[in-house]
Amino acid sequence: MTPGDQHPDAPAAQPLRSDAERNRERIVAAARTVFARDGLNASMASVAREAGVGIATMFRRFPSKAELVDAVFIDRMTAYADAVTAALDDPDPWHGFVGYVETACAMQAADYGFADVLTTTFPAAKALEHCRNEAYEGMVELIGRAKATGRLREDFDPSDLVLVHMANAGVVNATGGAAPDAWRRVVALLIQSFETPTRGPLPASPEHEALYQAMLRPGPPGVAAPESGD
Amino acid sequence: MTPGDQHPDAPAAQPLRSDAERNRERIVAAARTVFARDGLNASMASVAREAGVGIATMFRRFPSKAELVDAVFIDRMTAYADAVTAALDDPDPWHGFVGYVETACAMQAADYGFADVLTTTFPAAKALEHCRNEAYEGMVELIGRAKATGRLREDFDPSDLVLVHMANAGVVNATGGAAPDAWRRVVALLIQSFETPTRGPLPASPEHEALYQAMLRPGPPGVAAPESGD
Repeated sequence: MTPGDQHPDAPAAQPLRSDAERNRERIVAAARTVFARDGLNASMASVAREAGVGIATMFRRFPSKAELVDAVFIDRMTAYADAVTAALDDPDPWHGFVGYVETACAMQAADYGFADVLTTTFPAAKALEHCRNEAYEGMVELIGRAKATGRLREDFDPSDLVLVHMANAGVVNATGGAAPDAWRRVVALLIQSFETPTRGPLPASPEHEALYQAMLRPGPPGVAAPESGD
Repeated sequence: MTPGDQHPDAPAAQPLRSDAERNRERIVAAARTVFARDGLNASMASVAREAGVGIATMFRRFPSKAELVDAVFIDRMTAYADAVTAALDDPDPWHGFVGYVETACAMQAADYGFADVLTTTFPAAKALEHCRNEAYEGMVELIGRAKATGRLREDFDPSDLVLVHMANAGVVNATGGAAPDAWRRVVALLIQSFETPTRGPLPASPEHEALYQAMLRPGPPGVAAPESGD
């Protein structure tokens, strides 16, 4: 993505006055810190506090959390999509696939906010979702090539990568700073389970539409939804 | 123990007056509902609201969340420990081990609160922790027997079951009602990865002490801290 093809929905599409611009940058930097530390459930108010701006300024620059998430995570999502491209360039598709899973999970482990972003979809975060879709298409291609080598199990479904990210987020969130490398062991186990010969059939994958609905959730049950109900 | 030396922390040590008793039962029932729906991060205030009691009554009956967690989850933790005992009675230890992992993960999937309880330790919840320790000892025995059959990988560590529960909680929390069976596929993959012959070595297990520290956490990063802003 070059600066020239910036998405029209992005608030930066036309030059902001310099103090507005400064506030915007300050908010994005603060959100990066707060989301990385606390995950996406961090409130807009806590981001405003970290940035040292008023809540009104905050909402003037970013009317919704989706827009803030878009601005904060577009770089990481781009890096994520780049990891897919790099994996596709690997002459050994199985090796590329394994390296990609490890890289993507390491990106989650490095940033609680991004760990959530990879398992949550934000239809209003246009640039982010565009980039995610590109990564997804590359991933489907990568999976097909890895299966063609005979080393990736035939019943592997692209949705399994979403499940890996959900499982990895669970480990990363639970172990945190106390056991920061624990996720590596779980991911290594999962990768071994993907390799042929399999030890038998698996329960069916969730329907893609159901998984998409799950990814629309605002966060873990109860903690994110102000109107919660469930 | 005579009424004279009653410990102030033990409201149930002598029979409660009937309205106090009723309030206690009502709070436990409400907490069961709220924790199952929202996870352990649900506030004491939301439990009091669900129970229809004042916050003062709430704290008179349960001065800390650990005591409430103890009262709410002791039945489930007992069922969990019973699942270990049943697995130890299986004449095929590998079969017993697999059945136990599936049962324990199903218990997590059925109750968001219990999903958290299995990956969080509450030193102040005495009955719960006693029961957890019994289950742990049985589990270590079960793992030893399953390894002796040659089907469970030699480098399997008891802490791997904690990691499985953390990963499973991640999937259960993320998929929720939209894809309620998705966890089964991840757990099946993990179980397949435990079976010999292995596909190679794994990254080291976390130190048990580090994992214990991780389990002392109050909840996912950020969301549990009362000053977190939402």
